[in-house]
Amino acid sequence: YRGLNTASTCISHVNVKPVSSLKGRTFPDYVNSPNSKLQSLIWPKPIQNIFIVKKPWSEKTTAATAELIHHLHAKYPSINVIVQDNIIDELKPRLLLTPENSSCKIDETHDTIPLFTGTEEEIVKKTDLLITLGGDGTILRAISFFNTDYVPPVLSFSLGTLGFLLPFEFKEYSKVVDEIIHSRSKVLYRTRLECYITKRSKNQIKTIQEKSDDGKDAPKQITKVHAMNDIFLHRGDSPHLTYLDIYIDGDFLTRTTADGVVLSTPTGSTAYSLSAGGSIVSPRVPCIMLTPICPRSLSFRPLVLPHSSHIKIKIGSKSKKKVAGGEPQAKPIKLNIDGVSLNDLEYDDEIHIVNEVGTIYLDSNSNIPYSKTGVPPLDAGYKGLSNNTKLAGIHCLARSENDWTAGINELLGFNSSFKLRN
Amino acid sequence: YRGLNTASTCISHVNVKPVSSLKGRTFPDYVNSPNSKLQSLIWPKPIQNIFIVKKPWSEKTTAATAELIHHLHAKYPSINVIVQDNIIDELKPRLLLTPENSSCKIDETHDTIPLFTGTEEEIVKKTDLLITLGGDGTILRAISFFNTDYVPPVLSFSLGTLGFLLPFEFKEYSKVVDEIIHSRSKVLYRTRLECYITKRSKNQIKTIQEKSDDGKDAPKQITKVHAMNDIFLHRGDSPHLTYLDIYIDGDFLTRTTADGVVLSTPTGSTAYSLSAGGSIVSPRVPCIMLTPICPRSLSFRPLVLPHSSHIKIKIGSKSKKKVAGGEPQAKPIKLNIDGVSLNDLEYDDEIHIVNEVGTIYLDSNSNIPYSKTGVPPLDAGYKGLSNNTKLAGIHCLARSENDWTAGINELLGFNSSFKLRN
Amino acid sequence: YRGLNTASTCISHVNVKPVSSLKGRTFPDYVNSPNSKLQSLIWPKPIQNIFIVKKPWSEKTTAATAELIHHLHAKYPSINVIVQDNIIDELKPRLLLTPENSSCKIDETHDTIPLFTGTEEEIVKKTDLLITLGGDGTILRAISFFNTDYVPPVLSFSLGTLGFLLPFEFKEYSKVVDEIIHSRSKVLYRTRLECYITKRSKNQIKTIQEKSDDGKDAPKQITKVHAMNDIFLHRGDSPHLTYLDIYIDGDFLTRTTADGVVLSTPTGSTAYSLSAGGSIVSPRVPCIMLTPICPRSLSFRPLVLPHSSHIKIKIGSKSKKKVAGGEPQAKPIKLNIDGVSLNDLEYDDEIHIVNEVGTIYLDSNSNIPYSKTGVPPLDAGYKGLSNNTKLAGIHCLARSENDWTAGINELLGFNSSFKLRN
Amino acid sequence: YRGLNTASTCISHVNVKPVSSLKGRTFPDYVNSPNSKLQSLIWPKPIQNIFIVKKPWSEKTTAATAELIHHLHAKYPSINVIVQDNIIDELKPRLLLTPENSSCKIDETHDTIPLFTGTEEEIVKKTDLLITLGGDGTILRAISFFNTDYVPPVLSFSLGTLGFLLPFEFKEYSKVVDEIIHSRSKVLYRTRLECYITKRSKNQIKTIQEKSDDGKDAPKQITKVHAMNDIFLHRGDSPHLTYLDIYIDGDFLTRTTADGVVLSTPTGSTAYSLSAGGSIVSPRVPCIMLTPICPRSLSFRPLVLPHSSHIKIKIGSKSKKKVAGGEPQAKPIKLNIDGVSLNDLEYDDEIHIVNEVGTIYLDSNSNIPYSKTGVPPLDAGYKGLSNNTKLAGIHCLARSENDWTAGINELLGFNSSFKLRN
Ligand SMILES: NC(=O)C1=CN([C@@H]2O[C@H](COP(=O)(O)OP(=O)(O)OC[C@H]3O[C@@H](n4cnc5c(N)ncnc54)[C@H](O)[C@@H]3O)[C@@H](O)[C@H]2O)C=CC1
Ligand SMILES: NC(=O)C1=CN([C@@H]2O[C@H](COP(=O)(O)OP(=O)(O)OC[C@H]3O[C@@H](n4cnc5c(N)ncnc54)[C@H](O)[C@@H]3O)[C@@H](O)[C@H]2O)C=CC1
Ligand SMILES: NC(=O)C1=CN([C@@H]2O[C@H](COP(=O)(O)OP(=O)(O)OC[C@H]3O[C@@H](n4cnc5c(N)ncnc54)[C@H](O)[C@@H]3O)[C@@H](O)[C@H]2O)C=CC1
Ligand SMILES: NC(=O)C1=CN([C@@H]2O[C@H](COP(=O)(O)OP(=O)(O)OC[C@H]3O[C@@H](n4cnc5c(N)ncnc54)[C@H](O)[C@@H]3O)[C@@H](O)[C@H]2O)C=CC1
Repeated sequence: YRGLNTASTCISHVNVKPVSSLKGRTFPDYVNSPNSKLQSLIWPKPIQNIFIVKKPWSEKTTAATAELIHHLHAKYPSINVIVQDNIIDELKPRLLLTPENSSCKIDETHDTIPLFTGTEEEIVKKTDLLITLGGDGTILRAISFFNTDYVPPVLSFSLGTLGFLLPFEFKEYSKVVDEIIHSRSKVLYRTRLECYITKRSKNQIKTIQEKSDDGKDAPKQITKVHAMNDIFLHRGDSPHLTYLDIYIDGDFLTRTTADGVVLSTPTGSTAYSLSAGGSIVSPRVPCIMLTPICPRSLSFRPLVLPHSSHIKIKIGSKSKKKVAGGEPQAKPIKLNIDGVSLNDLEYDDEIHIVNEVGTIYLDSNSNIPYSKTGVPPLDAGYKGLSNNTKLAGIHCLARSENDWTAGINELLGFNSSFKLRN
Repeated sequence: YRGLNTASTCISHVNVKPVSSLKGRTFPDYVNSPNSKLQSLIWPKPIQNIFIVKKPWSEKTTAATAELIHHLHAKYPSINVIVQDNIIDELKPRLLLTPENSSCKIDETHDTIPLFTGTEEEIVKKTDLLITLGGDGTILRAISFFNTDYVPPVLSFSLGTLGFLLPFEFKEYSKVVDEIIHSRSKVLYRTRLECYITKRSKNQIKTIQEKSDDGKDAPKQITKVHAMNDIFLHRGDSPHLTYLDIYIDGDFLTRTTADGVVLSTPTGSTAYSLSAGGSIVSPRVPCIMLTPICPRSLSFRPLVLPHSSHIKIKIGSKSKKKVAGGEPQAKPIKLNIDGVSLNDLEYDDEIHIVNEVGTIYLDSNSNIPYSKTGVPPLDAGYKGLSNNTKLAGIHCLARSENDWTAGINELLGFNSSFKLRN
Repeated sequence: YRGLNTASTCISHVNVKPVSSLKGRTFPDYVNSPNSKLQSLIWPKPIQNIFIVKKPWSEKTTAATAELIHHLHAKYPSINVIVQDNIIDELKPRLLLTPENSSCKIDETHDTIPLFTGTEEEIVKKTDLLITLGGDGTILRAISFFNTDYVPPVLSFSLGTLGFLLPFEFKEYSKVVDEIIHSRSKVLYRTRLECYITKRSKNQIKTIQEKSDDGKDAPKQITKVHAMNDIFLHRGDSPHLTYLDIYIDGDFLTRTTADGVVLSTPTGSTAYSLSAGGSIVSPRVPCIMLTPICPRSLSFRPLVLPHSSHIKIKIGSKSKKKVAGGEPQAKPIKLNIDGVSLNDLEYDDEIHIVNEVGTIYLDSNSNIPYSKTGVPPLDAGYKGLSNNTKLAGIHCLARSENDWTAGINELLGFNSSFKLRN
Repeated sequence: YRGLNTASTCISHVNVKPVSSLKGRTFPDYVNSPNSKLQSLIWPKPIQNIFIVKKPWSEKTTAATAELIHHLHAKYPSINVIVQDNIIDELKPRLLLTPENSSCKIDETHDTIPLFTGTEEEIVKKTDLLITLGGDGTILRAISFFNTDYVPPVLSFSLGTLGFLLPFEFKEYSKVVDEIIHSRSKVLYRTRLECYITKRSKNQIKTIQEKSDDGKDAPKQITKVHAMNDIFLHRGDSPHLTYLDIYIDGDFLTRTTADGVVLSTPTGSTAYSLSAGGSIVSPRVPCIMLTPICPRSLSFRPLVLPHSSHIKIKIGSKSKKKVAGGEPQAKPIKLNIDGVSLNDLEYDDEIHIVNEVGTIYLDSNSNIPYSKTGVPPLDAGYKGLSNNTKLAGIHCLARSENDWTAGINELLGFNSSFKLRN
């Protein structure tokens, strides 16, 4: 990358401050334009706090992040930059501009760069705009911070790696950031899925725990999760088939005997669902995709369901017969959301999946099994959200009306023709 | 079937009258209900005219049609029954109830059954409710009468044959007809596609002609067509590949080298598109499906596009090189709408496909090729329609909220599991 | 191409002679080598007659053909070049080398080039080696001349166009021709299918007629055909489904309701079968592929059958019910072999497909329906052939052991990975 | 089941004896018949030792096993029955026939049933015929005992559960056993795959260890394994893609970015490969199938390779870049053979797969990477076997010529048509 050439000042300190000291976040307005597939992003008041998330352990990304922070600091001094605390050490040496490592003069006024940080919960409450630098995985991870809340608009830069969700290259950042700050950008709306887990034994919504890297359950406890791409259930290490009973809007649809099943947004239609044989769905089609993973059936064609669907999946077992003094046995099933493993599911556990803006079946107690069982109402969460459906989903800064068509051609090699020799 | 047991009167005459003598048609209101996937069909004033379409040349269907007409005549004498004139001869003997062929007494007051008929155009203007008796093909044909106009609500009875679009069995007719007449029915909304044809040589919208059965062009001339299922282009008898250039919203998407391509509604997702490898899409997902037919590419995955898409397909040829003094040569391409062949397409001809309620790109002259070419505005037709989008599409009388789930399981054998021996 | 630079002599005449004047053809020996997938082609006596087939109406191909003939004439004067008579006029001007159009000197000895030609039947009897210049279609057409006989070894040159069956580029011709003449070449064995047609009404093997370009039946009459790629049945122009009853080795396998079905050799696995969803099969796997074309079933997975299979397909109709005084009606079905249309099939007609070297079920009269019906024995033809199975099939000159792996990667873009941006 | 009605004698003891005391095993001859897809099984000398394997922990299967042993004991007293030692306790109570639990008289001569048992290695050396009672899994497990040796003919009985590999129902056992003992049976030949593992770090063939149920490596150590169905590599619990480099006959074919890949016999074409999208291949087609599992590519079509292929798969990593002081990192890859997990593979590990009867490339040291590396010759094992290729593979007792056609129709629901309502 172009190096640190935008900065003309010497930076001698990085000043880390608590994110909690910032003012609360501002939501932009998203305005429809005639003849456009995109919405205009308009700031009702000036944007203040930008949360920058970078791919970890990549020197290129660290350099780019430092360059972006310098640029913001120099050009928009009133804007506050927020970062995760665990990247500050990595970032600091890159942020310092001394006469040795930059073009700053030895006798120049020395400057300090402020950086805000705090817990995930604190950051979420303050973020006006989310910027990611890295690949698709970086966006998925960054957006997962907003798992239980609205997602601010997302600006994603690629750094030369594959990225279906990355419309911008880093070298354009100056122009792109300008446009967004001055409310001249367009966003593509992407829908999120919402997932709840019910444990049979306890008749209650389970607290969801991310698996930490050493395989142990991490301390974080949440009661629902949102997915940008997909939610999948899978046999994992077990070499044996899973038995999953699938219900739609309270009606039994089918039992799948398979490696697993993936429930996907249109955004996720080009991720795992595609590998499993699903169609390519435009992000502007409101729907939920249900794609089987290696089903032991000749006739399990992928389904595209209404976005108002309420999908319930219950873990079954091969035989319903109770083993002496016990339960029908089923191997633990892997649950995975946007590439992150959650805790395993067992026989009779259920997950419920709806669109973030909810299902029309919500109040119909005859159709929704979990409202029968007296568990805390599923809607507690997204009822709140659905009061303000304009903020639901993910608003991704877009380059042009036709990013999608370009993407499936250039990135996925859609319908590539057989080649001519010579 | 149950025979003519509902009638207690002797019918000695069928009185054929001109449909033009009837009052103009009445549109029902379609009202959304909370927690329901269906809409309620409400008649603002009493229903008057029912158009009954039956599968041709089937004795069973003729008998059922006669039974239904007797029932309507006896129970709802103020309702007028409309039929196509070419079935009257087939129907008449079945309608007459004499002491010999029914339980009417020899000295009973003799009664006359009135039947209304006329040209297709005349019938369309008077129909409040459309009833079909036969298979899926019968519905497709019946709805094609309303090709250039709104479609009245459709009630479809099956007579024991396969039918994915047929929620009701004929034996239930008495109850079902009662409910619909008394505004106690529910309808499922299905979307229609709209198709325009442009001939290159003449730079004008082509009049579309159905191929008559002897292969000659029939006299009927129309400028656009609607599809309930699908529109497909195909190589037909020619054993060579077609070359079709596909544009979405004015942007080039891809050139397909294939048997052809099918553009389908969600309703049509279980028709040809399914055979060609497309996903199963709920009729409640607003979208247009683009499914290749035997593409010579490993990577042409079916696409699910937004329902606001404007799809243009231009007939290409293998080589762009002009042959001495001539045109690049391309075999004629078959155009087919809902199972009916239209006239062939040739090199450089175009078809344009939009949803019945139109595309958001309509006015953007930079994106829509045909508005550039000065042809009569494409929108002339459906602009009118879109003033009243509540009437657009097809409102199909539905049995229950879950006809679709039941249908894919029972009729398509979705995800049927491998069988147990014994 | 490189122009006519190999010739140093002036050519002032082309001397067209009857192919019948040549000595009968010589079959090479095909010898297996240890550790090789290919066979060595060994001429037991010197090769004499080379039949050159070129793509029609392509100037580039005509030039290349002339260059090759000059080369053969100059370097191997004892070898006789055979061509189809309808290309002689096209070729002649290109063959003449005068001081004006080449580097030959004005006072040089003038030379005459002999060309042999005759009817297809005559040519077949004399050809030691077949050379094609053009694309895959040219090979298919050239080999179809040998429809009722053994195929000589085939050397195929591409001229810059796509070609899955074309291992060599024309510019290598000098080296490649040298090697083959001196028995230093390797061949890849490809299997052929054999197809018989039985007309129900006449209880006899039907004479097969190619459709001529104007749609009329051409005069040529044959009783069986061989396929290098595939044999397919298809609905053609009719927009309605076909009903085909498929039997394997005398047992009913399935009824297909579909656009049609393709029976393919492994060679043809990368042609139509691939487009219809079939797997990619190495030409060295002895088998027959049965791939449905757009089947109206969720569970018709492509089949790979033993090469000893006897496949019978009988044209069915939607309903078995006889129409008054008539036959169950079925639209004519298109029959196509290696891209050439044969005459249409009708209700109750059958085709039988076996491998060229025959089926093990041949004598088992309980299993083979047509031997029951007293028709002339199916085996009449290939029984003869199978006496000499070493000559059956198609021996294609190969570049290297791994042409196939290279081909699926380079030509088909097999498993192309999603692209990196930048 | 029919209960113990075949026995008329009282059984008061089960006499467990060492299998090592039996005479060595006898191999049958397999004789081709004209016009048959099957081979006749002929015993050159009377059959002596039958090894019976049953599904564990199923009462129904235990009862059936006891019934079969009684039958053999009563009708063929000279035949020795072998069982695994860990099922003797389960079997014993079922084998004893006292006046209380059977129709034997109280004063009848009491009889003893002998059962032979020993280690797996000992049993393998003595088995003339293998009989399985259970499902497909039971056959796979039973045959895996013969992992490093020839497989005796296999007779498989189903007990009412699904079974694609199970031609016979248990209730026919008397007739079926009679036929096989008197050399009047037919067998279907099924091929086996052979798999070798090479650890990069140690440059040697790895000893393969089955994972025991508690996840620890079991003590058993072997150097190669055979597969009846398939060998697959998979990401397992890790939610991230695998990177596998695939070579055919020493040439690089492709890198797959996927859940994994399955290498399958034609027998296994209806197991995992089918779920992953592979074609259905007749067991009589000699080939190896390579089917990707959820590949991140639109163009990875399943491949059908020659049975002489040598397939090498090398574990790759996402980036080839060395991490500071270390190796490119790759998650452990799961290796699974016929439903049994072996120990995990890591970065740079290789597996090699050939057909049991070997590859023609065996001696060509330029093509086979592992012979370059000085590892113990791959062929050590199956060279021995290939001396007697008539005994290689698996000879399954067959019911009729057309078990396969019946199986794909009845068990897999192949090409099931869309159903008629009513
Ligand atoms: N998603 C899938 O389809 C998966 C399939 N498998 C297959 O399971 C096999 C092992 O079988 P089990 O130990 O019983 O595991 P399992 O208990 O997971 O059952 C596998 C199923 O496949 C059936 N099956 C096995 N071999 C078959 C064949 N050759 N043709 C048709 N059906 C067959 C069995 O009857 C059973 O229904 C493996 O060889 C692998 O092919 C293993 C994992 C996932
Ligand atoms: N939708 C499709 O994919 C269709 C394919 N075909 C195939 O076309 C063949 C006849 O070829 P043409 O007369 O040239 O017709 P064509 O002009 O329609 O071209 C067929 C294409 O297939 C290629 N091709 C032919 N044989 C091949 C093979 N064995 N492997 C890979 N590619 C191959 C040709 O290079 C050409 O690009 C038929 O045997 C049939 O397999 C025919 C109709 C439709
Ligand atoms: N290979 C294939 O699958 C082909 C399918 N078609 C389809 O046939 C339709 C026309 O129907 P017909 O005139 O009756 O032709 P047809 O007599 O060829 O029968 C088509 C079949 O599709 C069924 N069908 C029609 N619409 C359906 C829907 N929406 N969902 C599920 N099944 C449906 C019908 O019941 C009938 O079994 C076209 O719109 C096209 O979609 C047409 C040609 C080939
Ligand atoms: N066999 C497969 O295709 C599998 C796919 N996944 C997908 O990976 C996603 C998580 O991504 P990572 O954490 O980066 O895992 P990862 O490191 O395994 O990479 C997944 C790949 O998918 C790409 N990707 C992610 N989202 C995409 C989208 N919406 N459209 C197109 N490509 C996309 C990424 O660029 C990356 O190349 C999951 O949401 C799931 O969809 C997960 C497991 C297996």
